[in-house]
Amino acid sequence: METIQSVRWSDDGHGVRIIDQRLLPSRLVECDLRSLDDVVNAIRSLAVRGAPAIGIAGSMGLVAVLAPNANDAREKLIARAREVAEIIRNTRPTAVNLPWALDRMIDRALRTDGDGRAIVDAMRDEATAILEEDRAMCRRIGERGVSLLNDGARVLTHCNAGALATGGIGTALAPIYIAAERGQAVEVFVDESRPLLQGSRLTAWELQRAGIRVTVLTDGMAATLMRREGVDICLVGADRIAANGDIANKIGTYHLAIAARYHELPFVVAAPTSTVDPATATGAEIVIEQRAADEVTLIGTKQTAPSGVCVYNPAFDVTPAELVCAIVTDRGIFRPPYRFS
Amino acid sequence: METIQSVRWSDDGHGVRIIDQRLLPSRLVECDLRSLDDVVNAIRSLAVRGAPAIGIAGSMGLVAVLAPNANDAREKLIARAREVAEIIRNTRPTAVNLPWALDRMIDRALRTDGDGRAIVDAMRDEATAILEEDRAMCRRIGERGVSLLNDGARVLTHCNAGALATGGIGTALAPIYIAAERGQAVEVFVDESRPLLQGSRLTAWELQRAGIRVTVLTDGMAATLMRREGVDICLVGADRIAANGDIANKIGTYHLAIAARYHELPFVVAAPTSTVDPATATGAEIVIEQRAADEVTLIGTKQTAPSGVCVYNPAFDVTPAELVCAIVTDRGIFRPPYRFS
Repeated sequence: METIQSVRWSDDGHGVRIIDQRLLPSRLVECDLRSLDDVVNAIRSLAVRGAPAIGIAGSMGLVAVLAPNANDAREKLIARAREVAEIIRNTRPTAVNLPWALDRMIDRALRTDGDGRAIVDAMRDEATAILEEDRAMCRRIGERGVSLLNDGARVLTHCNAGALATGGIGTALAPIYIAAERGQAVEVFVDESRPLLQGSRLTAWELQRAGIRVTVLTDGMAATLMRREGVDICLVGADRIAANGDIANKIGTYHLAIAARYHELPFVVAAPTSTVDPATATGAEIVIEQRAADEVTLIGTKQTAPSGVCVYNPAFDVTPAELVCAIVTDRGIFRPPYRFS
Repeated sequence: METIQSVRWSDDGHGVRIIDQRLLPSRLVECDLRSLDDVVNAIRSLAVRGAPAIGIAGSMGLVAVLAPNANDAREKLIARAREVAEIIRNTRPTAVNLPWALDRMIDRALRTDGDGRAIVDAMRDEATAILEEDRAMCRRIGERGVSLLNDGARVLTHCNAGALATGGIGTALAPIYIAAERGQAVEVFVDESRPLLQGSRLTAWELQRAGIRVTVLTDGMAATLMRREGVDICLVGADRIAANGDIANKIGTYHLAIAARYHELPFVVAAPTSTVDPATATGAEIVIEQRAADEVTLIGTKQTAPSGVCVYNPAFDVTPAELVCAIVTDRGIFRPPYRFS
């Protein structure tokens, strides 16, 4: 089965090659990030998105930005690395993977002996390791999560927690890819996920490309789909998981979880262990990014609301642990009450 | 307060003047429906929409189509009236107001003595009466429903059940307009209401025009708005109300009602008495119109999903009576268990 690679090293090894996800599903275009501006803009504009993919692109991007300074003295290079990491870290506040990955990169730099070049080389190895570990983690999530899917399962998902969001075969979509690999029948329904339509643009695109049957619906149709058409399980990703099991994920996830509870359907979250943030006790502590009004009021060039109208546009929401039946990570399937350590 | 008139007689009295709602919020354009094709296309393409407005436009359209035949003999004209009414009736299956209004028009024709001209004149009076009664009904709904709004109420609505959907000041929006008229503070939040965005395009437009504070959100944000920002009441319209109180309304209403229940918020439906269909025992009997895939996969000219993907696109959903706290009609406020007769 063909799954795409959303983030990797560029051919010359000096840049980060990403799929520009803003152009999907119409066009598949890759571009190389080389400067700090490139990296910051790609993350902020959602050219690269998905919590694990942002962590990977941020780490690899840090290396790409530092590489021209490899002749600097050790202390100067480390100071610059901290400075660049801080700027990249502040691009998006909600996901935990990005600060987790950048902390790991800086830690590796500090633990490496030698001059600037030795440090850059070590950081390159570390970023590659973060990518490779994520790829392996996705497979482990898929292998554990597939046990939750019956043959012929009808899965409802939200946003994109697939190959495009990670270094590998995704998180919420990983069990689906593994099921398909094993010849098990599986059918996916995906909320389009307004405002940025990651469900219809990205999830539908990558599943269709992999030959998996997928149906798109608008976010307000999910409850009716559950009631009238039959859904076996809701499976979504996460941007941050609090210590108590509260889940920050794409806006609309919480609404979906409530509908799943009303219809007595299992609502399951799949995410790498790095998404669990032990420093966040509950979802109430998670900062929710508010994004620009025109994400809601403009679709392409079409004006969808009157000029000057007020807009509510949180990028994420928090689903309380009480609505989450299970959390699948690379370490296993957790059930409430959630304890990850 | 200025509210707009969505359907009325054209200046020469021979056509039906409608606001072409497909062009809002960018442009306010009116057009006159004169032929059967005009009427059918306007209803089917949603140039005119909203259950009461469709009933009015269908009745007035029937007159406009028959007027050139006014010299026909009585029996010939009645046969033609039945034929035209049947075609108009079949434009959209879910709302009950259209068949209700057309039945009333045909009944008036049958009860009228005289030749073709006498019948057309009587039908014109009947269509005008349907419009005027709807306008009066809207005000009565508003006057009854306003008792449910505290001063400063924060109201969440879905789709457009406003002036654009009726002959008067709307159904769900009527209590809001009355509150504003009385100088009571009121703030409205509206789901954009994908796929056709009647919330952001129409409700936001007419409330903004009337000087009422309105905020647009995407459909998947409603639950988070309830949890984090505070909402006092959900107030929506209806396309058909079954005898047991089950409600057919714009897709997304059911999802919203579930979220309101989870947050223990009152979920209230406002509709004219003609929306209650005693012949429909429960919501299970209501035919739900399925609409074209490209309503979901194309926004303006922007492709939002990969070519050829499957799409689920029911235009309406059914909210079970158990989720509805109250139904406001022109006759009063009904509470469960619902008995309308």
